[in-house]
Amino acid sequence: MTDAPDLRYTEMSELGMGISVKVNSTIFHDESEFQTIDIIDTPALGKMLILDGLVMTSDKDEFFYHEMISHVPMNSHPCPKQVLVIGGGDGGTVREVLRHQSVERVVLCEIDGSVVECCKKYIPNIASELDNPKVEMQIRDGVEYISTQKNQFDIILIDSTDPLGPGVGLFTEEFYTNVKNSLKKGGIMVAQSESPFADQKEMKLMYALLKKVFPIVKPYVGPMPTYPGGYWSWAFCSVDVEPLSFIDEKRVAEISKNSKLYNAEIHKSVFALPNFVKKLVSEAM
Amino acid sequence: MTDAPDLRYTEMSELGMGISVKVNSTIFHDESEFQTIDIIDTPALGKMLILDGLVMTSDKDEFFYHEMISHVPMNSHPCPKQVLVIGGGDGGTVREVLRHQSVERVVLCEIDGSVVECCKKYIPNIASELDNPKVEMQIRDGVEYISTQKNQFDIILIDSTDPLGPGVGLFTEEFYTNVKNSLKKGGIMVAQSESPFADQKEMKLMYALLKKVFPIVKPYVGPMPTYPGGYWSWAFCSVDVEPLSFIDEKRVAEISKNSKLYNAEIHKSVFALPNFVKKLVSEAM
Repeated sequence: MTDAPDLRYTEMSELGMGISVKVNSTIFHDESEFQTIDIIDTPALGKMLILDGLVMTSDKDEFFYHEMISHVPMNSHPCPKQVLVIGGGDGGTVREVLRHQSVERVVLCEIDGSVVECCKKYIPNIASELDNPKVEMQIRDGVEYISTQKNQFDIILIDSTDPLGPGVGLFTEEFYTNVKNSLKKGGIMVAQSESPFADQKEMKLMYALLKKVFPIVKPYVGPMPTYPGGYWSWAFCSVDVEPLSFIDEKRVAEISKNSKLYNAEIHKSVFALPNFVKKLVSEAM
Repeated sequence: MTDAPDLRYTEMSELGMGISVKVNSTIFHDESEFQTIDIIDTPALGKMLILDGLVMTSDKDEFFYHEMISHVPMNSHPCPKQVLVIGGGDGGTVREVLRHQSVERVVLCEIDGSVVECCKKYIPNIASELDNPKVEMQIRDGVEYISTQKNQFDIILIDSTDPLGPGVGLFTEEFYTNVKNSLKKGGIMVAQSESPFADQKEMKLMYALLKKVFPIVKPYVGPMPTYPGGYWSWAFCSVDVEPLSFIDEKRVAEISKNSKLYNAEIHKSVFALPNFVKKLVSEAM
């Protein structure tokens, strides 16, 4: 019937476990100033964005990650107007943030302009809001950008790669301190914080740093099929806001209507941690 | 440094996504009367049990599945004494059930005695309680066994393979009807119900059948790294018990002490379903 080659994308963690995905074809390949950028087309997951050989997002499972990183902190703030996304050049986080009516401005600070251009062209459903007039695009290093901002943002989302390559500066005490200083009173930072199953060493290092900077550091968790272990975590950090101390129920219901994952029950359940995650984080902090 | 071959186990779903695991060596291979049985040794996950080319369990991630299938229903029953596990020849579910002091008897009804023997020998930490005097081993077809049991069990756990091969009879209306009839008043059945991300077709078929038989059918979900999509579901079914209508808080605390995953917050959060899972299940039922 077909003589197409049996192409597979396989991504293996240091420990020796990972995902394997059947591939129709490679769509795009570029070596930017910062990293290798690939788009591949797959039967199971649609288009996939791969940076330096690691899956960042895919058409079919991107909603798990983008809804989790955005709506949990957004709906924990009474009126988020000024939002900063660091990393996240694919645009999925910005798209979700802009579903909140209160938002006046989203700064997207992405180091690599080639990622943004590539995503607009090849994964337009994810990058769909990058040209929205509320978006202020800052193509520059987030480490440098954040050091110039004081008391500016209600919500800051660190939508970074893993702690290697161009993302490495986003996992330092200095960076987190600058993030804290650029939050307004009542502000919240959420950072992707790796896989509690597959990246325990990296996760511990990160929470140890976060706790040096933020009085309130609480992980939350959820499924993420194309990331190591199929299970991911995010760090909810603030000077003055405890998770679940405030929930905008009306906005939760509104956002839930057009979400694939997010709803009120999910919002309230994501901070329930398995014992091994509690232990890992408490050992780190 | 090493000249060991780069061995990998790769399991791909029909859709074309799956897991890949680095392999040290193959430990055991047998073709039983019912299926192909393999044990492989891996750096990331320890020993893995593979039946007919599909991962059943592994040393490192078995706790996700076994704690979820057992403690959620067990702690939803005021005093579970008589428990039946159908399938589950690796012994992990039986091991968790026996941590509940109220249990007087656990029947393990496994069609394939070769699986039981293999697991006792090669994954002894999972099979550790199979010789416990409270265990009644029934090496026979669960479909046949259940048809002979009326009003016998407080808890029935369907710890089956996927709906193909020797497990296929465990996904029928007749089977579920017999399960219902073999439950005592206030009894609960929990069945593994496939991946809400990777096995949507199978999951829908299963919930359609369950709803024909049980007045109460509620899915719950959790991470499971080595299963398709890294995300799994279980069906909580009963004639008269709603999930979370009763929780034995004291027993929850007791079991949580020595669990890797399970605790009170987890118990209360697992029935929070993403919108796409709610939709999938409501379309089926």
